[in-house]
Amino acid sequence: MNPRDPRINGQRLKSTIEELARIGGTPGGGMHRLSLSDADKKARDLFVQWLREIDLEISIDEMGNIFGEKPGEKADLPMVLSGSHLDTQPFGGRFDGILGVTGALEALRVLRESRIETRRTVAIVNWTDEEGTRFPPAMLGSGVWAGRFDRDWAYSRPDVQGKKFGEELERIGYRGQAPARKRPVHAYFEYHIEQGPVLEKIGKRIGVPKGILGITWYDVWVEGKANQAGPTPMDARNDALVAAAEMVLKVNELPAKMGGNMVTTVGEIYNAPNSRNIIPDRVRFTVDIRSWDDSLKKRAAEGCPARMEVIWDIPHTVFDLNLVQRVEKTARQLGYSDHSMVSGAGHDAAYVNQVAPTAMIFVPSMGGRSHVEVENTAWEDCEAGANVLLHCLLESANE
Amino acid sequence: MNPRDPRINGQRLKSTIEELARIGGTPGGGMHRLSLSDADKKARDLFVQWLREIDLEISIDEMGNIFGEKPGEKADLPMVLSGSHLDTQPFGGRFDGILGVTGALEALRVLRESRIETRRTVAIVNWTDEEGTRFPPAMLGSGVWAGRFDRDWAYSRPDVQGKKFGEELERIGYRGQAPARKRPVHAYFEYHIEQGPVLEKIGKRIGVPKGILGITWYDVWVEGKANQAGPTPMDARNDALVAAAEMVLKVNELPAKMGGNMVTTVGEIYNAPNSRNIIPDRVRFTVDIRSWDDSLKKRAAEGCPARMEVIWDIPHTVFDLNLVQRVEKTARQLGYSDHSMVSGAGHDAAYVNQVAPTAMIFVPSMGGRSHVEVENTAWEDCEAGANVLLHCLLESANE
Repeated sequence: MNPRDPRINGQRLKSTIEELARIGGTPGGGMHRLSLSDADKKARDLFVQWLREIDLEISIDEMGNIFGEKPGEKADLPMVLSGSHLDTQPFGGRFDGILGVTGALEALRVLRESRIETRRTVAIVNWTDEEGTRFPPAMLGSGVWAGRFDRDWAYSRPDVQGKKFGEELERIGYRGQAPARKRPVHAYFEYHIEQGPVLEKIGKRIGVPKGILGITWYDVWVEGKANQAGPTPMDARNDALVAAAEMVLKVNELPAKMGGNMVTTVGEIYNAPNSRNIIPDRVRFTVDIRSWDDSLKKRAAEGCPARMEVIWDIPHTVFDLNLVQRVEKTARQLGYSDHSMVSGAGHDAAYVNQVAPTAMIFVPSMGGRSHVEVENTAWEDCEAGANVLLHCLLESANE
Repeated sequence: MNPRDPRINGQRLKSTIEELARIGGTPGGGMHRLSLSDADKKARDLFVQWLREIDLEISIDEMGNIFGEKPGEKADLPMVLSGSHLDTQPFGGRFDGILGVTGALEALRVLRESRIETRRTVAIVNWTDEEGTRFPPAMLGSGVWAGRFDRDWAYSRPDVQGKKFGEELERIGYRGQAPARKRPVHAYFEYHIEQGPVLEKIGKRIGVPKGILGITWYDVWVEGKANQAGPTPMDARNDALVAAAEMVLKVNELPAKMGGNMVTTVGEIYNAPNSRNIIPDRVRFTVDIRSWDDSLKKRAAEGCPARMEVIWDIPHTVFDLNLVQRVEKTARQLGYSDHSMVSGAGHDAAYVNQVAPTAMIFVPSMGGRSHVEVENTAWEDCEAGANVLLHCLLESANE
């Protein structure tokens, strides 16, 4: 290997992902490794062992975020950081989060075996509870680190069985000593699967997100009048489910009307009394509106006549332009096709972006499927994205 | 009172209904008297006591159907029968079923105190488990009596706690000796609240149903593809809930397109995975189609592209034309306005109609509300309908 032009070991990256996939793997070929579970502990133990094997300086903070540093020649300069998360969705996939952690690990392995020294420290991170499925909200580890959430509030978050985040963190032995507080970061790169169908559809290998769509979550309540299905003529009805069905279709039509990279989803619906022969009188449904244009999200909601409540609202994230351009340029230098896009899903990168220059690197998801057991990405794509990451880290670490 | 022109005692009818309303009454002014519950037993005990007070010959059959007979001069001729049911919906109303039983009771009280003898036997009946809420299917008592269901199958029906119909019937002491088998009936009249808004809306007092709409129940399954709400563009989605919403609206539009006294209802809907940020991939919903024209019910369903299954299908019921005309004529003779209509709800009359000439008498439901605690009918309307019943019974009993 030419140390001036290092390359990822694609076979080793594949083996690393496959080894992690055995911890909390499902019979269906997916992953079930919820945050702070026994499986999460095992994955963390293996990760820490791998960090040790390449002599990284390991630190674990109060939120269980695990850092491994390869000190730079100028150790006092802000470091270059990369990583993602090892926890998964329930019956999720083998790549979401994991590719970003293993990609950064492979980059650091390559730096070590190629004896490449850098001006700045290069570090890897595994953020705790990115998925937020067990301990909502999502991205709790990076959120506390970036100052978005309070540490003790995070500790008090319960799972559905009433177990607290703080207690479970302690139980698996990953409540560290280091303060969960942002440190100076020169550049943060998060490598991730696209989780959507765009790259596959247009036949591009590297996605270059300019940022993350803003998200607003609404709960909507519709009221009607319950009555017997038989004797109530159609023109004397006040059917909450029919009204809700009209709204579901309106929500679905919003993106075509409004533009702004908007996507809208009604994912949950509850109907009452939910009886076959009674006209429904109470329907609650959720609306998930994501857009690059935060004002559009708001305008989209204003047309709704029912009672609505905002459950969650985060503005869109704009990544650091220099780093985004670096990802794009690096992909091209390595001979990979690239595509400028936006991320529809949230990532730890959104919080890190609030305190440090940040960019992401995407590779294609087969069939656009994610958060499901069949989630998959071609090994050549995994290797390609990791090469982009490696060279972005190198360039940033020598600035 | 002129024995040649007897009249219902409206005040006594009101008191009778109010006394029954105290057994299983809810704080909200409604009724919660499920079939074969302790409250049902108490209501039956009171009913039997009232039958005794007017010297009726009481018999209780194996299904708990309670009959009270006032023997006619020609006791071997087929009898004239009237009644309905004393069980109620959960948190239902004070009139559904109860008005038909108390109206017939009041008619028999008037015959007795006016010393009116009839050629044929006049009898009253309280059918068991009309609502079917606790022990589905509905109209179990009249169904077995009419030969539609097997007695032992009815006994084996469980409630949600696993208690069997037969055991509960035994427990409350109403498993009688008489065979639950149809006897010769010359005419059956069932007096009932409309349970819809039509009579109130057009300002008529007596509804004259020519029959009961046919009912078909469908389960419909829609499949899509689950995916993350954020990264999946609108044009790459296969959203089962959006598809279902379109179908709900189509179902709702059917009656306007097809006519035939059709009403259609989607009462139940289940969505999966029902998660705020995942595109739904499995939706099941129910369709209740009722029509006077059974072929329209079938044609309405044929346009649906999803997987459908017929859960229940009963053809429409056509009442005996002579008895229907008798109800209409009697209402006019008594000076009440009348309206020819169809019943959208099922009634014991549907099963009795299969084995004996049958008709029904409807009075207005305030606001068209039924199966809810606010179910209500004006006392003058209750009295008017009972007068129509009284004179229909008298005329039929002297044929």
